[in-house]
Parts: sequence; structure tokens; C-alpha cells
Amino acid sequence: RARALTLDLHEADLADLIQVLRPEERAGLIATLGEDFKAAALPELDEAVRDQVLEDMPPEQVAEALQQLDSDEAVYLLEDLDKEDQTDILAKLPYFERIALQRSLEYPEDSAGRIMQTDLIAVPPFWSVGQTIDYMRVAQDLPDRFYEIFVVDPAYHLIGSVALNRLLRSRRPTTIESITREDIRPIPVDSDQEEVARQFERYNLTSAPVVDQDKRLVGVITADDVVEVVQEEASEDILRMGGVAGESVSDTVWETTRLRFTWLAANLVTAILASYVISLFEATIEQMVALAVLMPIVASMGGNAGTQTMTVAVRALATQDLGPVNAVRIIMRESAVGLLNGILFALIMAAIAYFWFGSDTLGLVIGVAMVVNLFAAALAGILIPLGLEELDLDPAIASGVFVTTVTDVVGFFAFLGLAALWLV
Amino acid sequence: RARALTLDLHEADLADLIQVLRPEERAGLIATLGEDFKAAALPELDEAVRDQVLEDMPPEQVAEALQQLDSDEAVYLLEDLDKEDQTDILAKLPYFERIALQRSLEYPEDSAGRIMQTDLIAVPPFWSVGQTIDYMRVAQDLPDRFYEIFVVDPAYHLIGSVALNRLLRSRRPTTIESITREDIRPIPVDSDQEEVARQFERYNLTSAPVVDQDKRLVGVITADDVVEVVQEEASEDILRMGGVAGESVSDTVWETTRLRFTWLAANLVTAILASYVISLFEATIEQMVALAVLMPIVASMGGNAGTQTMTVAVRALATQDLGPVNAVRIIMRESAVGLLNGILFALIMAAIAYFWFGSDTLGLVIGVAMVVNLFAAALAGILIPLGLEELDLDPAIASGVFVTTVTDVVGFFAFLGLAALWLV
Ligand SMILES: [Mg+2]
Ligand SMILES: [Mg+2]
Ligand SMILES: [Mg+2]
Ligand SMILES: [Mg+2]
Ligand SMILES: [Mg+2]
Ligand SMILES: [Mg+2]
Ligand SMILES: [Mg+2]
Ligand SMILES: [Mg+2]
Ligand SMILES: [Mg+2]
Ligand SMILES: [Mg+2]
Ligand SMILES: [Mg+2]
Ligand SMILES: [Mg+2]
Ligand SMILES: [Mg+2]
Repeated sequence: RARALTLDLHEADLADLIQVLRPEERAGLIATLGEDFKAAALPELDEAVRDQVLEDMPPEQVAEALQQLDSDEAVYLLEDLDKEDQTDILAKLPYFERIALQRSLEYPEDSAGRIMQTDLIAVPPFWSVGQTIDYMRVAQDLPDRFYEIFVVDPAYHLIGSVALNRLLRSRRPTTIESITREDIRPIPVDSDQEEVARQFERYNLTSAPVVDQDKRLVGVITADDVVEVVQEEASEDILRMGGVAGESVSDTVWETTRLRFTWLAANLVTAILASYVISLFEATIEQMVALAVLMPIVASMGGNAGTQTMTVAVRALATQDLGPVNAVRIIMRESAVGLLNGILFALIMAAIAYFWFGSDTLGLVIGVAMVVNLFAAALAGILIPLGLEELDLDPAIASGVFVTTVTDVVGFFAFLGLAALWLV
Repeated sequence: RARALTLDLHEADLADLIQVLRPEERAGLIATLGEDFKAAALPELDEAVRDQVLEDMPPEQVAEALQQLDSDEAVYLLEDLDKEDQTDILAKLPYFERIALQRSLEYPEDSAGRIMQTDLIAVPPFWSVGQTIDYMRVAQDLPDRFYEIFVVDPAYHLIGSVALNRLLRSRRPTTIESITREDIRPIPVDSDQEEVARQFERYNLTSAPVVDQDKRLVGVITADDVVEVVQEEASEDILRMGGVAGESVSDTVWETTRLRFTWLAANLVTAILASYVISLFEATIEQMVALAVLMPIVASMGGNAGTQTMTVAVRALATQDLGPVNAVRIIMRESAVGLLNGILFALIMAAIAYFWFGSDTLGLVIGVAMVVNLFAAALAGILIPLGLEELDLDPAIASGVFVTTVTDVVGFFAFLGLAALWLV
């Protein structure tokens, strides 16, 4: 029954079906399907479900499934398991598959070596088109899908590539050499996947060869996997900016509480620092309680303006639209914008404060504090991400705390300080 | 000289070169290069530069360049120009090219119809592999790159597709029909590009046919363009969440000031609402100024906790990891996390307040206010994005203001209200 139901499903849909089952039923369904289970469904599962299913399946069965997958998908399944489970599963694989997967797992996480597939077609330049096509007709171990073939020398150094449509449109006696494109951009195997995605985006690639330090061909990366890399990197940055780095919707209450606690604790230090600034002016506030009413406005506007600048800066750094070439121009622009919006909101808030509390000096104080804080917010918003990038730290992860520290401290200090000088 | 320098450049590098020139030099360089100018560099320019260059080039020259490009790139260049410039350029194009581009421009912005290319190969099912290959050898107007060919009936209804590697590995007398895959997922021409990206990600596609309402084949979308869509959609969401929707690093000071003003004005309304809540307790603060010192901590912790939950929710909605199936579970989880972290930070802050101001009741007040606000933050952080999604509004754009309104108002009200009851 289960077999009849799942046989026509696409692997992504089968993965969805497995996901809605109760955890203890999942390995059972896979065991029941046996030979008919589509191994390709495994990489489509969400991380938490995937790890649970792989741990519940017997190592033999996982090894069996890995052999049906392209090597990049197999690595993707293995990389998140504990060392012990990895070893158990690898032990059940035939020699060549085991060696290939072990080598891929040795590359750094999120590197080209992890997302490439090692199944590819490479031919020598002196072959003819006819010979190449005949080889492809009889060869057993071809990749499931491929869009170009590679041309290599006897030591497997990459010479160039031939797109399949070029091959198809050439006559059989043509030599491969004469239709090889040599102006290709091989990707070093240890490049970060973010750099890989940038190359694909910049040069509009559909697939790209991966080479080792000696320029030997070791794999190929295809655009369908890059689509996933781009999503993953964008999620990473969004979650980092929101103070929820590394979270997933499938996390438990405990994991989530623990992950968020750290960020909130960092924020608590910031908030206490801001409180300390306020406490310096307790006497002033005691004399004029309207200051306590208005002070959060200055801090909050600064926080938002700083976040705006920071968001643009962090994203532009990630997409490399911000760099040494235009950094000075952007710093100037942000300062000008901060000053202009500072003046606009100074006028608005001065008027509101005047009508609310009937004090023109209070209006002046909040107006000047607003200009000062929005200008400080702009500078912090652009300089902090640039500084973190310069220090090789990820601007997405830490900019937020620093920027709001600046805007809180400057906001409270400017507003209460001016009030102490001019008002009481 | 310029010619010799640019001839070997990849179009992306040529685009970078054009970008570093002064605006008035750009069209000049392109005119100087004449025939040797790589039209493919135009779509690689940043938006602001691209529009400036296209407006400075004579319409004949733009029309000339458009004919060298794949149709999707041509549409990409045209779509941002004013109607008038579009008409001038289209008028210089040959009849068929003009009609094809006009039709693509009629599809909604960011739809499949805008990102597809109309250059493709479609053959009838009764052709043989040999016939198909011979056709591809002589045909003039083939796309630059393609990875599959499509099989259509006489009315151009899509029957299926044949991957090039399948074609290559089949013998010449084989009929196309016998190697056609029919289990493909054509994309409706009016789908949003975000939906297109989801299909590519879900089904690991490298290219996909696009069909009209009558299931007739109208174009093909390739994964290299989807990589750009995913980047674009991620940038859109990040910028929206940061209150800088629609900005680009190349915007001027005036544009930037205007765009940010709106968001800051919305935030000002929120901040004033929070101030109003504080003003209700002026008498209480007057009696105990420590309240003014501590109150921003409660609001700030709530704001950060709410932003954490909201970030996870907004991203998960965008990637469809959050939906009707798991919404209830996530709401429960977020409530539990809010409560747990609320209790943890309540204990920490109660201790700090006690040692700082020597009042155990003040410690109790801030502790209870912290639990209340972190729980409210969790509920607002998950329910507001879900509610906006339900109303078909983009959760990325508006959740932030609403969430911080809740956490500010609840934070100040709980803390000052409890203080009024228990302390003074
Ligand atoms: Mg990875
Ligand atoms: Mg590109
Ligand atoms: Mg792959
Ligand atoms: Mg994949
Ligand atoms: Mg990364
Ligand atoms: Mg990153
Ligand atoms: Mg114009
Ligand atoms: Mg677009
Ligand atoms: Mg996928
Ligand atoms: Mg394209
Ligand atoms: Mg493109
Ligand atoms: Mg969109
Ligand atoms: Mg969107």
C-alpha cells in the first residue's frame, strides 16, 4: 500500500510525506519501501528530521542509499552526523565510494569541496567527437545530469570544457581540442561557498569545474546547488542580524532558549550601560520628570536610524556592492542623510515637546539631541560594519549590539546632558 | 587602444570598467568600441549606472545591443526605462524581435514571463534524434546556451523535454518520443519569481519550461537567472526588515533621506505612544527616579526578544518552513521560550536592581515586568508576522514597527504600573 502511494512521488514530495509522519514511523516506512525507497528524498528532508531518520536507519541501509545519490548529496547527508555514525556508514561502502566521500569530508565545511559532485566526464583533447559520444553511450558510471564535459591532460590538469550543445552540433570526426573553450574560470576546491555563489552570479554560470592546488580537476558544481547556497547564506545573514544565528524552525524549546539567551545577555549589558548613563542625571530628572517621558524617543529614533544604515551596509558588504572603491562615498552619503533626517525630526520633535510640555527650552534640548543622535547613528551604522569587515569578523553578527549601544548612550547622554546644562 | 584593452575582458569585468568611469565618459567608450562592444556587459551594470548609460546611448545603438542579447537580458534592460525611452528603442528593432519583447514586457514585473528567455528549441515527437541533431547544426537562431530541448504538439502545447545528455547518448534513428520525459513541472508564465525560485530549489532544476494559460510553451528559465532572483528576493527582505525597503547603494543623498524618512516617521509615532504610557506615571517617577533609570532595560529586552522571534518567523515564512502545518507548534514553542528567558532575565535583573538601588520590591517589580514583557514579545513576534501573512501583506516590511510598539508599550506599562501599585 505504502509502495503504491509513494512510487510516483517526486523525491521532494516523498520527503514532505516522511516529515509529517511521527518520528518513530519514519524509518519503518523507509524499511517497508525497501528497494523502492527513493534515496534522493533523504537530502530533501529538513535538518532535524534528516538526522533523526539517518540515525534510526541501519548503517547498511544508509550506505545503500548513499550509493544511489550524486556524491554532493551523499556528502551533504554525511556531514552533519557524528563522527561515529559516519564511520559506521562509511565502513559499509565499497572501497572507491568510501575513499571519494572521505576525501570530500576532509574539505572545510561550506567549501567548494563539500558542494561539488565528483561524478563527471573528462576526456583527452585528442579524442574525436564521435569517440567521446560513443564513450558516453557505453560508460556505466555517468552523473545523473551534466551540462558540459571537461578536457584534461594525462595528469588530469584541466584544459577546458565543451558544452553539450557544442558537442551535439559538431560532426563526429571533429577533434575535441578544436571545440574546447579554454577561457573558463575553475573554482579552487577550498573556496568558501559564498565565494562560489559570487562567481556563479557574476559570470552567469550553470556549472563550473573545481580544481585542487595543482589545478587538477576534482569535481564540478552545478547551479541548482548554488541556488541552495544563496538561500542558505541569505538565511544565515538574516538570522544573524536578528540575533538568532544558527536557529532553525525545527529546534526544540531548550535549544532555542539557550541560543537566544546569549544574544539577550549581550543586549542586557548594553541596556545597563545606557541605564548607567541615565543614572548620572537622576538629579536632573527629579527636577523635571518630562525628561523621563521624552528620553526614550531620542534613543529609539537613533536606534532605528542606525539600524537602517547598518542594514544597507551589511547587505552591501555581503553582495560586495560596498568595498574600498565606494566606502568613502557611502560614509559621506550616510553622514549627510543622518544630518538631514536629524534636522527634520529635530524640528518635528521640538514642536511636539513644546506643545506637550509648554517649554521652548525643552523643545530646543530634544531637537539638538535628535540631530546629534541621528548623526551618531549614521556614523555608527556605517563605520561599525566596515570596521568588523576589516577585522575579518562577520558584520551581520555583531553590528547590531554595537550600533544600539552607541545610539542609546549618545541619545541619553546628549538629551539629559543638554537638559542639565540649559534647563535645570 | 580602448579596443585592445577591453577585447579580452569578460562582460562582467567590462561592466566593472564602465562603472568606474565618470558618467559622461561611459557612452563615449561604448561608442568608440562600436562593433567590438560586448552588449552582454549592459545587464551586468548596477541599476543606476545601467539606466544612465542606456539613456545616453542613441536608441539605434541600444536596439543593436538588444539583438545580441538573450531575450531575458533584453527585457531586463528595457523594463526599468521610462515608457518613452522604451518606445524609441523598440521602434528601431526588427518586427519579430519587437513583438517578442513587447509581449514579455506585458507580463507583470517579477513574474516568470519577465525572467524567461524566449529563445529555445522545440521539436515534434515524431522526429528522430538524427533529424533533431541535423536541425540544430543548421539552425541560425539558436539560444547561446541550452541544456534541454522541448517536445511540443502542432499547437505548441508542451509534451515533455529531452535533456541534451540523453539526446547525445541516443542513436540517430531513435524517435524523440521514446526518449521524452513527460514528468516535468512547467511554470505558469504569470507566477511570481519567488515561486519560480521555490520550484527550482524544491525540485533541483537547472532549467524549466514556461507555459501560458493554454499550456503552450512560451519560454524557458535557467538556473543562472534563478541564482540572481534568490539574491534579489533575499536583499528585498533584508532591506525591508531593516526599514530601508527598495534602497540601493547607488542612491543619492536626497533619495535616501526621503526613503528613510517614512520609516522613521512611523517609528516616531510608536515612540510617542510609548512616551504617552510613561507620562501616565509621571507622579510615580517623581517619587522614585530609579524607575526612570531602569525602565529602558525592560523595554529594550522586550524589543530584542521580540525581534528574535520575528526574525525567525519572517524568514521561515519566506522559505515556507513555517505554514499551517507547524504554526501552532511554533507559537507554543515561542511562548515557552519567551517565558523561560523571561524568568531567567527576571532573576538576573531583580538581583541587579536589588544591589544597585537596595530595594527588594524594586527587584520584584522589574522581575515581574520582565517576564510579562518577554512573554508579550514572543507572542507579538510570532503572531504579528503570521497575521500579516494571513492578510496577504509582506511580514518583512511591517512586522518590526508593530512588534516594537507592543514591547515598548507593554514594557513601560507593566514596569511603571507595578511600581505604582507596589512601590509608591
Ligand atoms: Mg552546507
Ligand atoms: Mg549575473
Ligand atoms: Mg548536485
Ligand atoms: Mg541539492
Ligand atoms: Mg557562510
Ligand atoms: Mg555570510
Ligand atoms: Mg529618460
Ligand atoms: Mg526583476
Ligand atoms: Mg533542493
Ligand atoms: Mg538567462
Ligand atoms: Mg542574467
Ligand atoms: Mg519580491
Ligand atoms: Mg519576498
